[in-house]
Amino acid sequence: MCDHCVIESVKRQMLSRRSVLGGSLAAAAASVAAPAFAQDATPPAGAAQAGRALTIADMTHELYPEFPTYFGEQQFFMEQKFSFAEDKFNLFELRVNEHTGTHVDAPLHFSEDGQSVAEIPVEKLMAPLVVVDIKAKASENPDAQVTPDDLQAWIDANGDLPANCCVAMNSGWQQHLGTDMYRNADQDGTMHFPGFHLEAVQMLLEGSAVGIAVDTLSLDFGMSPDFAVHYGWLPEGRWGLECIANLDAMPATGATLIVGAPKHRGGTGGPARVFALT
Amino acid sequence: MCDHCVIESVKRQMLSRRSVLGGSLAAAAASVAAPAFAQDATPPAGAAQAGRALTIADMTHELYPEFPTYFGEQQFFMEQKFSFAEDKFNLFELRVNEHTGTHVDAPLHFSEDGQSVAEIPVEKLMAPLVVVDIKAKASENPDAQVTPDDLQAWIDANGDLPANCCVAMNSGWQQHLGTDMYRNADQDGTMHFPGFHLEAVQMLLEGSAVGIAVDTLSLDFGMSPDFAVHYGWLPEGRWGLECIANLDAMPATGATLIVGAPKHRGGTGGPARVFALT
Repeated sequence: MCDHCVIESVKRQMLSRRSVLGGSLAAAAASVAAPAFAQDATPPAGAAQAGRALTIADMTHELYPEFPTYFGEQQFFMEQKFSFAEDKFNLFELRVNEHTGTHVDAPLHFSEDGQSVAEIPVEKLMAPLVVVDIKAKASENPDAQVTPDDLQAWIDANGDLPANCCVAMNSGWQQHLGTDMYRNADQDGTMHFPGFHLEAVQMLLEGSAVGIAVDTLSLDFGMSPDFAVHYGWLPEGRWGLECIANLDAMPATGATLIVGAPKHRGGTGGPARVFALT
Repeated sequence: MCDHCVIESVKRQMLSRRSVLGGSLAAAAASVAAPAFAQDATPPAGAAQAGRALTIADMTHELYPEFPTYFGEQQFFMEQKFSFAEDKFNLFELRVNEHTGTHVDAPLHFSEDGQSVAEIPVEKLMAPLVVVDIKAKASENPDAQVTPDDLQAWIDANGDLPANCCVAMNSGWQQHLGTDMYRNADQDGTMHFPGFHLEAVQMLLEGSAVGIAVDTLSLDFGMSPDFAVHYGWLPEGRWGLECIANLDAMPATGATLIVGAPKHRGGTGGPARVFALT
């Protein structure tokens, strides 16, 4: 349908509506108190009924056209199709590379016939969140990687990895979002940011971890020449999360990640809304 | 549908509303099997650590190019940019109208300066799920609406509406997805499917409900000439969910909805991954 059609249709509808209701509703939107469950005396009843309150945290970066990308070129576009001024409602068409912003890598991304993003079992999109903090070494070396030693240190401190968990790298890289340091490309175009080491994901493949997450642009560290972690991890039926936000607010263990992956048929991943429940 | 046709169709809709339509539908709501997590012996450890297991259910329809749309034209497109056969990895670019598939309506969709989808407070994206079942009357009348009486019947049976809840209409319309009955356009182009009545959302505006959800293409019923519910509800700082899935698997009360809304700056809504926790 073209713009003109809908403009005309909505104008007519608005006219009709005014005649029906006898006035414009355009006035002042009432602001609704935003009850933060954590601070609210009345937690969500559903959760309360089940025995405890849940607190939700947002692990998602806002997406905007200039959001940094692995390939370095713009990957997210918004085109306004209808505007309130003209049409009495707002609507955009979006164009987006699946691997943009806080997003999921499905097994199909790096395999011939792995699970698409729509095929990942929903049970695997809720996972105990394990946060592996490598901020200290990443602050000294942008090419730092999560190694088996880092995983072992987490285990020594916190016990065995929870079943069906997601292991997230907190490299502190979120602080660089909005600056060139997030991609950190050198004069040859090689990027330098932290990621997982192949040996770490090989260690995780021995267990039941369903996903890995990074606060950078790639599961592999920036200077990887071969996507070794992508090829080692995704074809095994596990998922990845790139550009996750807000890891500093999460405990090393005890939170539950909810991965609002998109569900388009045959997709290799896509921008996701990611939450953590505690 | 060409421009002229659409305008004409809207004119007819406005006329036909005044004459009020009847009509009947074949009954029989398909029951949807509940997802398998409840039967899983290993609930997520994070949740277990916090004191109870959570069960997750998927409330999202798979999105595909032919997914039915309000306007009747294709609104979702996938373009393969890289293929495993050629490039050793798969990647698509997506083009999508924000209001396609299981998706969120943000306040900005029908207001001049309401909250964008990225501005909805995260706490409002987790809400006790209230399911109002109008399948019986919708099976007899596709123009059925959720009325204050339906809400009162729910309250009489289940008690007060939970604070900060989402009220979902289960009209049984999910069974029609994949058939022309989902849009159910008559020969004049007027659609006939259930939705909320303005008086019901006015009743909800007196309380703290954060959202309403429908298992159809619009918060308003299909033959609405004026988007009265959109204009009555969204500018008040509340959100909507259209084309929600799987309501038959949900209890009338007791589940918690998690709305994985997209988070693009200035967005009026967008395809969302929606879960329910029990």
